[in-house]
Amino acid sequence: MQCPVPLDKYPHIQLAHGGGGKLMQDLVSNMFRAAFDNAHLGGQTDSAVLDIPAGRTAFTTDSYVVSPLFFPGGDIGSLAVYGTVNDLATSGANPLYLSAGFIIEEGFSMETLWKITQSMAEAAKETGVMVVTGDTKVVERGKCDGVYINTSGIGTIEHDLDISPRSIKEGDAVLITGDIGRHGSAVMSAREHLGFEGGIKSDSAPLADMVAGLIEAEIDIHCLRDLTRGGLAAALNEIASAAGCSIDIVESAVPVSREVSAFCEITGIDAYHIANEGRMAIFLPHEFAEDCLGLLIERDKINLPSLIGRVIFDGKSRVRIENPYGVIRILDIPSGELLPRIC
Amino acid sequence: MQCPVPLDKYPHIQLAHGGGGKLMQDLVSNMFRAAFDNAHLGGQTDSAVLDIPAGRTAFTTDSYVVSPLFFPGGDIGSLAVYGTVNDLATSGANPLYLSAGFIIEEGFSMETLWKITQSMAEAAKETGVMVVTGDTKVVERGKCDGVYINTSGIGTIEHDLDISPRSIKEGDAVLITGDIGRHGSAVMSAREHLGFEGGIKSDSAPLADMVAGLIEAEIDIHCLRDLTRGGLAAALNEIASAAGCSIDIVESAVPVSREVSAFCEITGIDAYHIANEGRMAIFLPHEFAEDCLGLLIERDKINLPSLIGRVIFDGKSRVRIENPYGVIRILDIPSGELLPRIC
Repeated sequence: MQCPVPLDKYPHIQLAHGGGGKLMQDLVSNMFRAAFDNAHLGGQTDSAVLDIPAGRTAFTTDSYVVSPLFFPGGDIGSLAVYGTVNDLATSGANPLYLSAGFIIEEGFSMETLWKITQSMAEAAKETGVMVVTGDTKVVERGKCDGVYINTSGIGTIEHDLDISPRSIKEGDAVLITGDIGRHGSAVMSAREHLGFEGGIKSDSAPLADMVAGLIEAEIDIHCLRDLTRGGLAAALNEIASAAGCSIDIVESAVPVSREVSAFCEITGIDAYHIANEGRMAIFLPHEFAEDCLGLLIERDKINLPSLIGRVIFDGKSRVRIENPYGVIRILDIPSGELLPRIC
Repeated sequence: MQCPVPLDKYPHIQLAHGGGGKLMQDLVSNMFRAAFDNAHLGGQTDSAVLDIPAGRTAFTTDSYVVSPLFFPGGDIGSLAVYGTVNDLATSGANPLYLSAGFIIEEGFSMETLWKITQSMAEAAKETGVMVVTGDTKVVERGKCDGVYINTSGIGTIEHDLDISPRSIKEGDAVLITGDIGRHGSAVMSAREHLGFEGGIKSDSAPLADMVAGLIEAEIDIHCLRDLTRGGLAAALNEIASAAGCSIDIVESAVPVSREVSAFCEITGIDAYHIANEGRMAIFLPHEFAEDCLGLLIERDKINLPSLIGRVIFDGKSRVRIENPYGVIRILDIPSGELLPRIC
């Protein structure tokens, strides 16, 4: 679909596109409303008015500042939809509605903005969410880095499970839904032009269908966590800390692609610390592990899940990892910033 | 209250504060969770899980990029809370929950971030909303301008009114809740060091209590609109366009302070185009206008409301304004950016 804003007249975003006047109205109507078209985007009020069924409702927010805006396997637009959808899904919610807040730099390419908007719209369609409310701000040249996008999301919890660290029990199995380290490596490689042969593609993908499928199959999920900033190490440590348990992991069970291994070798970064955008950890009773793995493999024969470890309540809150030689080490949370601007 | 992050150790925000590791966890726990403390901020999942009563729910989002961050009458923190609360309130909703997404520049003062966070927390307390979920990103020096804040909000509509342009009827009275042009002038004066004698103070304030009071008093509100970016002119034109009606305004009835008039005189900017952050227009049947004015005056004896015009369904969608000499002109929406970065 062609950019609905006339590019010969407005090839670039101007400060006026964020000024609340006619130019902003045109941008919002022609670009954002056109792309996200749905019944709630009537423009009659400043808020979307929604009918949300009674019960538990999940609410989450994320700002996306990824650099570069386009990377192998995705872009800031699809990332901003999948990321927030995944935060809802891993809370056990059925994602329904998103908001979209754009902060755009003066001089940004109108055509690129349209590409990003289309990517968001496609990702929203794919995941069955509606972008129902939005906001557009424009800042002067040099005051942001192209475009930053905030998405907030609302979803409903339509089952009786309490998907949360507090539900984790002694002996729970820990699964991950695919190989790790791809998103952060892909973004970093694209930014620094590392040029890995064969390339590393981000794993950026929605998780909501997968979660819905497991719940429908009556898998007794205790806890879910997407493996974003800080990677598997941060996710497991956060859960260990919240649940007051330890988690023991077997290194050889954690899938890492050859390309990501090479990236880690060269950069000295630990694959366990690298962000993923389409992977989650699943905590569940051991007797459900096999069924869960089966269901996951059935839906995706390329990104294979793995049983990587188990939960122990030993009065500590630590994550331990055993290497193929039987050596056990503590898997710490990264202290700082290994890969800035990866989401 | 003192900054809970040790300033001798971390006087400035580092990239690592957004990296998903230990430093980010500490910042989120010590600063944001401490300031916004509430039962939903448990940190067990990526989303807040809320019990929202069945019925109509309003959902809105706004990013705040105001410059300077502190201005006479407010700061980005209180603005980010009031602004989103006001979007909910003018949709007729009772504001309940906010999200807070921070994009912070590397090197930003930790103490200033704490001041802004405290200001947000106080504004949330004042307006009875809870900040239940958040996100922190850090971008490199020069990639934003101190801090940008996104707030999204959820509120419930607990009455049977349809507060929307589609409810506007022939002959409806148009009220505004106070003098106009203060927020934009105050921010612009502070940024450009215009140094108006006596100073201009922003009108930044929450409107939710006022709306709740009118609904409780059974004022038959047809439509509400806060007079933000683009000012009174943009708000009225948007409503005229959405409702398919014309709006006739009497210039002498629109309150403008002497300071704002002087600002407009010097800058050549029309007061009707300047953003407000604590004013709204109210559309209601003429027979309710007196009661409504009475109630508004009762609650605030300093910022006085005014009956400024009325609605006519004449097959057009225009806003006309009559000056004291009987001359009528079209009040157009500003085409572009008069005052960038005012919210």
